[in-house]
Amino acid sequence: MKFLTSGYAADIGDILNGALFTVDYSEMVIVKDVDYYSLCEHHLLPFFGKCHVAYIPRTQVIGISKIPRLVDVFSRRLQVQERLTNEIAECIREAVDPLGVGVIMHGTHLCMAMRGVEKQNSATVTSAMLGTFRSDARTRAEFLQLAQ
Amino acid sequence: MKFLTSGYAADIGDILNGALFTVDYSEMVIVKDVDYYSLCEHHLLPFFGKCHVAYIPRTQVIGISKIPRLVDVFSRRLQVQERLTNEIAECIREAVDPLGVGVIMHGTHLCMAMRGVEKQNSATVTSAMLGTFRSDARTRAEFLQLAQ
Amino acid sequence: MKFLTSGYAADIGDILNGALFTVDYSEMVIVKDVDYYSLCEHHLLPFFGKCHVAYIPRTQVIGISKIPRLVDVFSRRLQVQERLTNEIAECIREAVDPLGVGVIMHGTHLCMAMRGVEKQNSATVTSAMLGTFRSDARTRAEFLQLAQ
Amino acid sequence: MKFLTSGYAADIGDILNGALFTVDYSEMVIVKDVDYYSLCEHHLLPFFGKCHVAYIPRTQVIGISKIPRLVDVFSRRLQVQERLTNEIAECIREAVDPLGVGVIMHGTHLCMAMRGVEKQNSATVTSAMLGTFRSDARTRAEFLQLAQ
Amino acid sequence: MKFLTSGYAADIGDILNGALFTVDYSEMVIVKDVDYYSLCEHHLLPFFGKCHVAYIPRTQVIGISKIPRLVDVFSRRLQVQERLTNEIAECIREAVDPLGVGVIMHGTHLCMAMRGVEKQNSATVTSAMLGTFRSDARTRAEFLQLAQ
Amino acid sequence: MKFLTSGYAADIGDILNGALFTVDYSEMVIVKDVDYYSLCEHHLLPFFGKCHVAYIPRTQVIGISKIPRLVDVFSRRLQVQERLTNEIAECIREAVDPLGVGVIMHGTHLCMAMRGVEKQNSATVTSAMLGTFRSDARTRAEFLQLAQ
Amino acid sequence: MKFLTSGYAADIGDILNGALFTVDYSEMVIVKDVDYYSLCEHHLLPFFGKCHVAYIPRTQVIGISKIPRLVDVFSRRLQVQERLTNEIAECIREAVDPLGVGVIMHGTHLCMAMRGVEKQNSATVTSAMLGTFRSDARTRAEFLQLAQ
Amino acid sequence: MKFLTSGYAADIGDILNGALFTVDYSEMVIVKDVDYYSLCEHHLLPFFGKCHVAYIPRTQVIGISKIPRLVDVFSRRLQVQERLTNEIAECIREAVDPLGVGVIMHGTHLCMAMRGVEKQNSATVTSAMLGTFRSDARTRAEFLQLAQ
Amino acid sequence: MKFLTSGYAADIGDILNGALFTVDYSEMVIVKDVDYYSLCEHHLLPFFGKCHVAYIPRTQVIGISKIPRLVDVFSRRLQVQERLTNEIAECIREAVDPLGVGVIMHGTHLCMAMRGVEKQNSATVTSAMLGTFRSDARTRAEFLQLAQ
Amino acid sequence: MKFLTSGYAADIGDILNGALFTVDYSEMVIVKDVDYYSLCEHHLLPFFGKCHVAYIPRTQVIGISKIPRLVDVFSRRLQVQERLTNEIAECIREAVDPLGVGVIMHGTHLCMAMRGVEKQNSATVTSAMLGTFRSDARTRAEFLQLAQ
Repeated sequence: MKFLTSGYAADIGDILNGALFTVDYSEMVIVKDVDYYSLCEHHLLPFFGKCHVAYIPRTQVIGISKIPRLVDVFSRRLQVQERLTNEIAECIREAVDPLGVGVIMHGTHLCMAMRGVEKQNSATVTSAMLGTFRSDARTRAEFLQLAQ
Repeated sequence: MKFLTSGYAADIGDILNGALFTVDYSEMVIVKDVDYYSLCEHHLLPFFGKCHVAYIPRTQVIGISKIPRLVDVFSRRLQVQERLTNEIAECIREAVDPLGVGVIMHGTHLCMAMRGVEKQNSATVTSAMLGTFRSDARTRAEFLQLAQ
Repeated sequence: MKFLTSGYAADIGDILNGALFTVDYSEMVIVKDVDYYSLCEHHLLPFFGKCHVAYIPRTQVIGISKIPRLVDVFSRRLQVQERLTNEIAECIREAVDPLGVGVIMHGTHLCMAMRGVEKQNSATVTSAMLGTFRSDARTRAEFLQLAQ
Repeated sequence: MKFLTSGYAADIGDILNGALFTVDYSEMVIVKDVDYYSLCEHHLLPFFGKCHVAYIPRTQVIGISKIPRLVDVFSRRLQVQERLTNEIAECIREAVDPLGVGVIMHGTHLCMAMRGVEKQNSATVTSAMLGTFRSDARTRAEFLQLAQ
Repeated sequence: MKFLTSGYAADIGDILNGALFTVDYSEMVIVKDVDYYSLCEHHLLPFFGKCHVAYIPRTQVIGISKIPRLVDVFSRRLQVQERLTNEIAECIREAVDPLGVGVIMHGTHLCMAMRGVEKQNSATVTSAMLGTFRSDARTRAEFLQLAQ
Repeated sequence: MKFLTSGYAADIGDILNGALFTVDYSEMVIVKDVDYYSLCEHHLLPFFGKCHVAYIPRTQVIGISKIPRLVDVFSRRLQVQERLTNEIAECIREAVDPLGVGVIMHGTHLCMAMRGVEKQNSATVTSAMLGTFRSDARTRAEFLQLAQ
Repeated sequence: MKFLTSGYAADIGDILNGALFTVDYSEMVIVKDVDYYSLCEHHLLPFFGKCHVAYIPRTQVIGISKIPRLVDVFSRRLQVQERLTNEIAECIREAVDPLGVGVIMHGTHLCMAMRGVEKQNSATVTSAMLGTFRSDARTRAEFLQLAQ
Repeated sequence: MKFLTSGYAADIGDILNGALFTVDYSEMVIVKDVDYYSLCEHHLLPFFGKCHVAYIPRTQVIGISKIPRLVDVFSRRLQVQERLTNEIAECIREAVDPLGVGVIMHGTHLCMAMRGVEKQNSATVTSAMLGTFRSDARTRAEFLQLAQ
Repeated sequence: MKFLTSGYAADIGDILNGALFTVDYSEMVIVKDVDYYSLCEHHLLPFFGKCHVAYIPRTQVIGISKIPRLVDVFSRRLQVQERLTNEIAECIREAVDPLGVGVIMHGTHLCMAMRGVEKQNSATVTSAMLGTFRSDARTRAEFLQLAQ
Repeated sequence: MKFLTSGYAADIGDILNGALFTVDYSEMVIVKDVDYYSLCEHHLLPFFGKCHVAYIPRTQVIGISKIPRLVDVFSRRLQVQERLTNEIAECIREAVDPLGVGVIMHGTHLCMAMRGVEKQNSATVTSAMLGTFRSDARTRAEFLQLAQ
């Protein structure tokens, strides 16, 4: 349990320290199919799945191995999937001030599969879109297609 | 039979009671691949398949494990697939007053596979789109792509 | 042979009689993956494949098990795939006066696989789009995506 | 070798003779997944793959079994894939004066897989778009989706 | 190690020498699924994956077997994936002055899978879009669809 | 309902009449992936799936299109899957006196998926093995492998 | 939690009451792909997956919808996968005194995927073989092949 | 029709003339996935599918491109699938006097899919095993596995 | 580098301490699809892939989450795949004195894909079989089938 | 052409020099899915596909990256697939004197796909089995299963 909620103790600054670079690159960067495991705050049962993270840098890029670390920090807490999605997106916005950020999460919720309605094949999809990912439909569409 | 039509006796209020939350989230939530089983009101033969439900919250979200419950309530009745699709969408609109709701249902109808035309591979697809899902083509397109 | 051309003798009125309903539903209805078998009128060799039929009702819907019957009526004749596709679409337009009709057919032609050019993997795709399926590109796009 | 370059001797007129029909059909016709085999004019090594051909008839349609024959005529020559794609498209334009023609070719080049860079999984995609396939982005998009 | 960084010593001029042709072709040329292997400049661990390269010629085309060679030249250096993507695109722009160039790279980074966050299934997607690939959303969309 | 239990009225003799041939063939004949639909005699809910039928002729073979007819005769009754499997095997044994008969049925039972335990992905496999299919393990193994 | 350990309170006799039948059937019956969810007794984290159950009846068969119920009874307890597999097999042996019983379980253990070694793709396979499933290698082999 | 029954006129001697070689090779040679098209002699409707041919040479091998030619010679006649399978095997036995021959044919029969029972997904599997393929179970098993 | 060779410093005793249990279970336990990453001792380039581990307990079982830990200990060293496979098997034999142990490893070697022969799709398979896995062919066969 | 027949000039001794090691390993080593490209000596057209190589070492193992090199040496000659398969097996037998060697080759022959019979989907499978791979059926079976 301590491990599963270790995200509360993580320091985002420490994680990103030294992992921000200035490169001449202005297209979308996507880190896709990041496995995550989290705990549903209502039933204390795990939910887990794949997370796709994208952003369009303004001047700085993040070392790509840091993106999954950020996903871990926020998923190792008591969460609902909607909030978890938002928190990852906001964290990247604050860290590198990009032109836009997009996060899509697919989740299998054991509270749905193990008990109650017992739908063993259902999945939940949430997304958070900031900056150009929110204002420009083509940017969203490109993210969806590249992350397939 | 009593079980298969138990949906008439369900109380939507009871199901949703205590499962509406106010979170700061304004993107589409999708619960996809919900298995459902219903009875065709013309031939009293089962039809069944997958249901995808999406909505864009205004202020309130539904606990995601409640969505499959709502699908069950309306499918455990004598139905035609078109009406079943509409009823699920309308129920969510009334419950959380969202910016929009979308429901897509794929159905295998035993009345088509077991008798008469004997087409064993056919499926029927219906959808119901309310609010921004009806007025905004890009919202529909995003739903279709994320629910794949 | 008599069986394979039995479509000439079918009476569309009989088939649809009692299978038109008035429901409050205004989205696209798709019956997809309908297997059909027909005879090429040039070589008298079979062609066959899958047919997807969609329409957007104005006031009336057809009982969905009738759609494959209509496909059978027109395919059990001497045909070319282009005409067959048109005839199915026109028949539905006349029957329920919908906002639009779309028909897509994938065909494997034995005249192409068995003899002559001997291309064993080729398929032919034809479509017929009437009403809003012709005038509105987004309706077509939605049909293509949902019928996948 | 004589066989592999037999395309030079073919007479397009002979092939199409008696295979042009006037039907009332105005949607896209696609013949997809046509296997072709050609010879790279630089290295005299084979390249081969799948070809998709589409056109929108104005008044005439070609018997569909002739399309793969045309593909064979032009691929059984010393070619580069870009020119081969163009020649098939132009030939159909001249034959039936359609509203538009589209040709897409996927090619595996043995000159790339067998020697030199030794990339065994690469493929080359070329296309030729004439008439409405060039001027109308939605026509192109529909072709791409139906030929998948 | 010498082999893995042999890209520094390569001479682009030598590679392209004699491989530029003038053909009458004005559609997109795609060389897709080019396997590449590179070294991450931060951790000195390999990253690798598939690269898709597209361009729309103005007057000249490159012999298609040269495209994978260019990918090799730039990947056999110490790299970050964002810069590698840019360098391939820029090199093609300089070589044939096309109407546009697009490069998409999928990368598995051992620094992400082998150590630290240990996400074994994640992939990173980067792209570089120049000329019409940057200015025209439909060109990008077509590239994405044809390279699938 | 009358249709679904029409199997009681069928006359096996009529079906096989004129469809028994004497050919010089002594290997296994398999008709695989025969779709069937039946009714569970306990819950009156449908069960359905694929049936594989094999036999090794002694002197007579059955016209292969008759095998699916026999499957239909026995499945259109109130059944349990175990008995249905046996009846099909016994019927073929009586009809052609073969060296052996094997029948394997995969069934999806709506009584298991729609109600009670609600396991939506479970399937039931039953088999009946007569003659050499019972006594010779290699014959069974060959049937299993060829019917895959 | 109460729900997840509800298996302790279940009465096997009640479940099987009235669901044992005497039929003339002596081949293997398999109920495959039964989804189960259980709790690891060491870490109190869920493990779940698919279970295949087979038995060869002596005189009695179990109503097939009871098999998944038995799987649920034993999985809704604090378990280790090895013991869970044994308990299901023993329970069936006691209930119907068959010639043999076989149980195979595939399990994804969140204690392995979420924490510690973080192997997101690993699965654990256990089996229990009683009677002829233990003594006869061909019976085991047939079970493995039919349950695939 | 003349084309479809052209097999009667073919001369096996002509086809094999000059295509028998003596090589030092004593393992199984398999030519698999040979597409064939034939005509059912009862209904005059096509049946078609894949054919796998294997033999173990004694002293002579056949040029492998001749095997599909032999398949064509015997399938372009009025046939039943059982006899067709036998004829191909016997022909190879006579031609090269091998240690053994095996032929497996998968057939889709339009007489089963287009009319009568209308089972659209069924396939028929026949085989002919001569010499060591008949006497040695391991040879058969190896053939089945390699031809998958 | 320190991380990648951290396996030298690991203490097997510490890892297994408290994770050995006595349960009444005598069938094969398989932990399959364990991702591993190692370094080739000849080229210092990574190799990686999936590992399947099986054993048949005598009296003791290992907590299943420890198996991947053991795989990590031995793969995080300079290795050749053959020795790595042996070391994992021997370690388990010493730890729980089972009736037998089997280990199968699939490896992608960057020294083969990145340089030299440049075969991008090759994989290397090694195995280690101890006790009954060595002496009993059926045990090996069962392992291979269950680990698929 | 010089490149494609460069195998005649290769010196096996040079390739293996320094790549033979003595390790304590006595199970099968498989290098599978090795892409090869060769030239048919009858038609001078390419044939290519995948090669699986296995051996059971007596005292020495070959560096695994050398196996694909040996495959290249023998395939870059004018060949027939049967002889090519034998030569690879014999070369390994001479190099390391193993307990046994097995080689399986799948080949697509352009002489079969491009001209003459035009069977675009056929493949040819050949194998060479020496030592225990020839004498022990279980060794062969294990090779077939592990190389899948």
